[in-house]
Amino acid sequence: MLLNYFIGTAGSGKSTLTGALKDYLMNRDPEISAITVNLDPGAEVLPYVPDIDIREYILLREVMETYGLGPNGAMILASDLMVNYLDDLKDELDEFNADWILVDTAGQLELFAFRDTGPLIASSLGINGIQRSITFLFDSNLVLRPNGFISTLLLAASVQFRFQKIPQINALSKMDLLDEDQIDMIVNWSTDFKALEEHTSEREKGLIRELSMLLSEVFIQLGSTAELTPCSIKEEHGLDLIFGYLQRVFDSDKSRFY
Amino acid sequence: MLLNYFIGTAGSGKSTLTGALKDYLMNRDPEISAITVNLDPGAEVLPYVPDIDIREYILLREVMETYGLGPNGAMILASDLMVNYLDDLKDELDEFNADWILVDTAGQLELFAFRDTGPLIASSLGINGIQRSITFLFDSNLVLRPNGFISTLLLAASVQFRFQKIPQINALSKMDLLDEDQIDMIVNWSTDFKALEEHTSEREKGLIRELSMLLSEVFIQLGSTAELTPCSIKEEHGLDLIFGYLQRVFDSDKSRFY
Repeated sequence: MLLNYFIGTAGSGKSTLTGALKDYLMNRDPEISAITVNLDPGAEVLPYVPDIDIREYILLREVMETYGLGPNGAMILASDLMVNYLDDLKDELDEFNADWILVDTAGQLELFAFRDTGPLIASSLGINGIQRSITFLFDSNLVLRPNGFISTLLLAASVQFRFQKIPQINALSKMDLLDEDQIDMIVNWSTDFKALEEHTSEREKGLIRELSMLLSEVFIQLGSTAELTPCSIKEEHGLDLIFGYLQRVFDSDKSRFY
Repeated sequence: MLLNYFIGTAGSGKSTLTGALKDYLMNRDPEISAITVNLDPGAEVLPYVPDIDIREYILLREVMETYGLGPNGAMILASDLMVNYLDDLKDELDEFNADWILVDTAGQLELFAFRDTGPLIASSLGINGIQRSITFLFDSNLVLRPNGFISTLLLAASVQFRFQKIPQINALSKMDLLDEDQIDMIVNWSTDFKALEEHTSEREKGLIRELSMLLSEVFIQLGSTAELTPCSIKEEHGLDLIFGYLQRVFDSDKSRFY
């Protein structure tokens, strides 16, 4: 059983990828079961029908009304209230007993990653032999410049630190927005500091180099890699790579899906 | 003229500090003028009355209704729409012509920091001799453990990277939630890697050390410091330190407020 959390800034494509990967898995092998879990109490339109849905327990609009809160305050409260339903979520997961569990997290990254709820959910849903992973999405729109790339890498490292026990895959989402040269360039940055340096101003060179080297080291020591996996739901092989990486996280003895 | 942006995760105390610092400045010297600017279209209850308010141009609830969006989608759109009112904001700022401008940013950090709007606003409101600074808030609730401290430091570094030309002050907010020993411990972590190492598990020691050393280097090279300034609106001298730091950012020739 593999449980993956999709984490990324608002608009980075978490929900789209959650739904698309489920379809991909089911098409690939009708024998395996895959389910989607929505953990965003504020989601209004989702591009998939979640099999397990936090909105059955908490609805952002209801929290706004019940507590007389604005969207900001209600989002925080709704996120914190999720811990009350951990047992329900666990029971639902047990009932499905699926091979793959794809979890879509809150629209705003920080609600899941930087409050207590996310790590709490992650640690209590990850027991009983469930393998866990995080797919952190680098929004193609934000990482075309070294500056945006590094700040997103820092953000990704920050998330990896919050969820230390869970291996993290860093994915370049919505790669269909970029041309092939741009994709190569960005993926190259994630593995080759010299390449990143070349695109950097003289003033920042040393800093960017040290920083990217060290961030790579962080990921490696925490059991992951800084290497970006490009993906897209609009390209023919856009999901193959993500699937492959997730498979490697899976216990190799049980990798009957290769 | 000094313009400061308060940035931090949801609930870290941005609005409270914005309002309290204005009062502090006015009480300190009735001759100086200080104004507050609210840049959160979703704010419903603010602990101060903003002198300039983005909600006069964009209201989150209206965006939700007009575009039929849920809170998540509306927050993103409202944030992106702010750039349309840059000229209006500039005009208002010119009219006030205040000595201090205290800017409260969106409840969710990532809306301001990781989309294009924030850096765009920051670069266009920072011309004509206005000195700018960012006060990044470390939420006392989140940084009591080395793990949370480092992930927040990474987040702070990420923000500093996005706003490279603006000196950043890192503040420990809501210090009244901690006892004196805890405050000392955390402030110590921000300047002394060995102290941080001591509170870290064997497995992480080397990594945490390298990382915190490098992050300090990042801040220094970008013109700031990783050193945390504790602050609180509930303690007698809780705002003095922040004031002092902001003063140093101010052009020393014009620092007539000391």
